[in-house]
Amino acid sequence: MKETNIYETDELVSQYCDFQYAEDHFDVMNFAKACAQKASQYSKTTPRKRALDLGCATGRASFELAQIFEHVDGIDYSQAFIDAAVELQKNGRISYAQNGEGELKKQIIIDLSAYNFGESSARVAFFQDDACNLAPQFKEYDLVMATNLIDRLYEPQLFLKNIHERINVGGILVLTSPYTWLEEYTQKKFWIGGYVDENGYEVSTLEGLTKLLEANFELIATEDVPFVIRETARKFQHTISQMSVWKKR
Amino acid sequence: MKETNIYETDELVSQYCDFQYAEDHFDVMNFAKACAQKASQYSKTTPRKRALDLGCATGRASFELAQIFEHVDGIDYSQAFIDAAVELQKNGRISYAQNGEGELKKQIIIDLSAYNFGESSARVAFFQDDACNLAPQFKEYDLVMATNLIDRLYEPQLFLKNIHERINVGGILVLTSPYTWLEEYTQKKFWIGGYVDENGYEVSTLEGLTKLLEANFELIATEDVPFVIRETARKFQHTISQMSVWKKR
Repeated sequence: MKETNIYETDELVSQYCDFQYAEDHFDVMNFAKACAQKASQYSKTTPRKRALDLGCATGRASFELAQIFEHVDGIDYSQAFIDAAVELQKNGRISYAQNGEGELKKQIIIDLSAYNFGESSARVAFFQDDACNLAPQFKEYDLVMATNLIDRLYEPQLFLKNIHERINVGGILVLTSPYTWLEEYTQKKFWIGGYVDENGYEVSTLEGLTKLLEANFELIATEDVPFVIRETARKFQHTISQMSVWKKR
Repeated sequence: MKETNIYETDELVSQYCDFQYAEDHFDVMNFAKACAQKASQYSKTTPRKRALDLGCATGRASFELAQIFEHVDGIDYSQAFIDAAVELQKNGRISYAQNGEGELKKQIIIDLSAYNFGESSARVAFFQDDACNLAPQFKEYDLVMATNLIDRLYEPQLFLKNIHERINVGGILVLTSPYTWLEEYTQKKFWIGGYVDENGYEVSTLEGLTKLLEANFELIATEDVPFVIRETARKFQHTISQMSVWKKR
């Protein structure tokens, strides 16, 4: 397991509270909400009892899924993210410091009551855990959604090769990623794609995913899903994730 | 003067060739072209003899300004950027490696003939120099344009306090910046804004600029100008620069 976790800072918790709960930018729909809606749609012919939101960050997509699913587990590697999600669930609100110009910050309060989740937010259980080495009790899901997770794992194969064991037959696996492979997160030998193989062939991540998943899943759809993360008052990351949807055989 | 220059890498030259010459993203107009057009518009009641494009990177805005101005100097702190601009001017083309997924790259060729600059590109002279300590010959300009420069200078005051000496009476200074103040570029004591002063007052960069420039310039306009820089096949910086337009008294 990695020894440090760059997600464990207040700055990133604030950035993700902003990403998951604050206003949209450039007319791009809230990404957690968009992914939860799409995942629910792809699950409409399967039972909607148990869902897992893996890499849930501050929990927005977990709360969204709980409007459709009877129970949702939200799991993140970062204890700080889980603490924020639990605080929102328990207290109904959280405050964070939104970056302005330079060192200027603005205190923002997120009030969960504004999102009309009603009673459904109580149907989420948040846990800190490692997607590459999940505890045994996380199983029997109708939906596993992992948004922007795979290119931030230290060994994504550990997650991808084993996740079918935790999904019911006919259940859905939804992955999204911009495939931003970086050695600071994932040693090159563990990249799923985005490299040239020993025969000089350029391996795309979607090909690499297919190779790892096809024994247990059928690829039923891919689509692009944009997201915007606010860094300062004027600077944003604007990224096009690829969503791939896999149905367990 | 700073001892290292993080702009001096092939990766950044490629990124800026892409930024200044490749296709638009998210329907945002090419930033160098947009700034040059706006600056030319703001200069329409003044002579259009000599323009300076300070922080010209790979030269796109300099070439654009040369369609309007009789002579344009394009200056950048990075020798690698100037080399690329000169290569484009001399050979009419340059090739660079555009990032794809992970380590995958695509070779792109920029051909200046596609931009219809005609003879005007010969009216640009490119130089490596330091905006905080410009050589004496850079003077008598009708327009000085500095796009996304001030928050990357080691001591922006040196530039801002002296630039009026190089601009003709009635001439125009156009600044754009997202005011992304970072200590890796500019020590906090030299930030123009984006900090809390000793009285607890939040100083905006536009206020700081006004304080430094008002003795010699009148602020005649501000507007937001967006830009998009491609980092990978799917990841972009999407930023809203503030353009401020100053007329020399």
